[in-house]
Amino acid sequence: MNRRSVEKVEITRLTGKKRVKLEDKVIRETPLTIFIGSQEVGTLLCTPCKVDYLAVGFLFTQGILQNAETIKDIYFHPERNFIQIQLDGSQEKLRSAIPSKNLFLSSCGACSSYLPEYWQNLGKINSPFTMKKDTLFEAMKDFEEKSNLFKITGGNHSSGLFDREKIEVFAEDIGRHNAVDKVIGECILKKIKTKDKALFLSGRVSWEILVKAFRALIPVVISPSAPTNLGIHLADTLNVTLVGFLRKERMNIYTHPWRIV
Amino acid sequence: MNRRSVEKVEITRLTGKKRVKLEDKVIRETPLTIFIGSQEVGTLLCTPCKVDYLAVGFLFTQGILQNAETIKDIYFHPERNFIQIQLDGSQEKLRSAIPSKNLFLSSCGACSSYLPEYWQNLGKINSPFTMKKDTLFEAMKDFEEKSNLFKITGGNHSSGLFDREKIEVFAEDIGRHNAVDKVIGECILKKIKTKDKALFLSGRVSWEILVKAFRALIPVVISPSAPTNLGIHLADTLNVTLVGFLRKERMNIYTHPWRIV
Repeated sequence: MNRRSVEKVEITRLTGKKRVKLEDKVIRETPLTIFIGSQEVGTLLCTPCKVDYLAVGFLFTQGILQNAETIKDIYFHPERNFIQIQLDGSQEKLRSAIPSKNLFLSSCGACSSYLPEYWQNLGKINSPFTMKKDTLFEAMKDFEEKSNLFKITGGNHSSGLFDREKIEVFAEDIGRHNAVDKVIGECILKKIKTKDKALFLSGRVSWEILVKAFRALIPVVISPSAPTNLGIHLADTLNVTLVGFLRKERMNIYTHPWRIV
Repeated sequence: MNRRSVEKVEITRLTGKKRVKLEDKVIRETPLTIFIGSQEVGTLLCTPCKVDYLAVGFLFTQGILQNAETIKDIYFHPERNFIQIQLDGSQEKLRSAIPSKNLFLSSCGACSSYLPEYWQNLGKINSPFTMKKDTLFEAMKDFEEKSNLFKITGGNHSSGLFDREKIEVFAEDIGRHNAVDKVIGECILKKIKTKDKALFLSGRVSWEILVKAFRALIPVVISPSAPTNLGIHLADTLNVTLVGFLRKERMNIYTHPWRIV
């Protein structure tokens, strides 16, 4: 656990007839402004751990960054809440990579994109990857076991990449999308393959999550929570297997069930 | 329940060793583009019920709309997912009301705002409103009872306005922020007072939720979930009582506990 992720606060707890003052720990929420060179891309509200992975994952899943090869340097200024990524290539080229209309596919509900147009051009994942159902149940146990920040604060989401044997990469954040971006960003920077693996996340599977998984070529998305109808339609189109409500001995497979054997 | 909020899908359910195909219901997620006159304000991803309340609540909590008096007409086009609000006043005047930098205080993590600057100018809620703790426990039961979409889909948030006796206004949506905006928008359009009442929401209390409550002059915010540290700091500054983890016989009061007696 990164200490920057949690803050101690004084609270009043009412239990039955008792009213006591005590110290409690809450999850941190911090604005993080991402720059590519001198160009501001946007500000995320996030939990300030693994911010380099977050920034790289965010830029990658937004389609702004294509791979790690072009990254020359990452500079994080924790006091001023900004992270600057220096890329190879001219400033002119970078400018054109940043959408003028904010196509931020985050949990926001505040993007100016027309979704169907966007995903019709994404393509499909052609992976023969399959997983045993019992492996999924085991993996979910591991996944929940790793959620340290959640155990402390009860206020965040988590995401993980599962390689058929273990949760290989894991991240937590106040935002569902950020947790996924941290996982993908770590994979990019550490050159961990994401193809033919499964993405776990703790929260709702909306369509932006599918876009992120697709960008990283991940063929299976798994959650203990519910999907949305758009998430399901997009998973279907992209050839991604979407599993929801994975809980003790039970799961719902919404799309491409042949990958769960 | 609005039928537009739920979609039937075919799923594969694994339970123990059984594998069956069946029909299930999932929550709808739809883009909704908001226009003021001919000017596009932005697109929300939302559950398409009470969209007029959502649009009005969103514009109000963003500070774009000041009150219902200026609304001449609301036109919703369900097939094309857009809602158009006609206001009194010249187009020129409206243009200036829409921030050029997208200050969308949604769950996004994709706004270009610098938070501290923003909230330092908000002011304070000077309300002597208090609530009895037992009332809160009862209200939370009512609140959860009303969550029909959640009972069906398990995939959405809810929000309600509590007037010391009952949940007076209630809404559900895939997004926490949208659910709150729907409640506030309904109050604006129906001229229901929000002052000296309590805002319930099912999800995490982050700082944008506090901004929304403050805009509607609501002095108490209550959730069964966790708050973030920024949510707590903002509640403290705005003089709002923030209650989290309200569950059976238990709650945490993070700020201004004198309002819970």
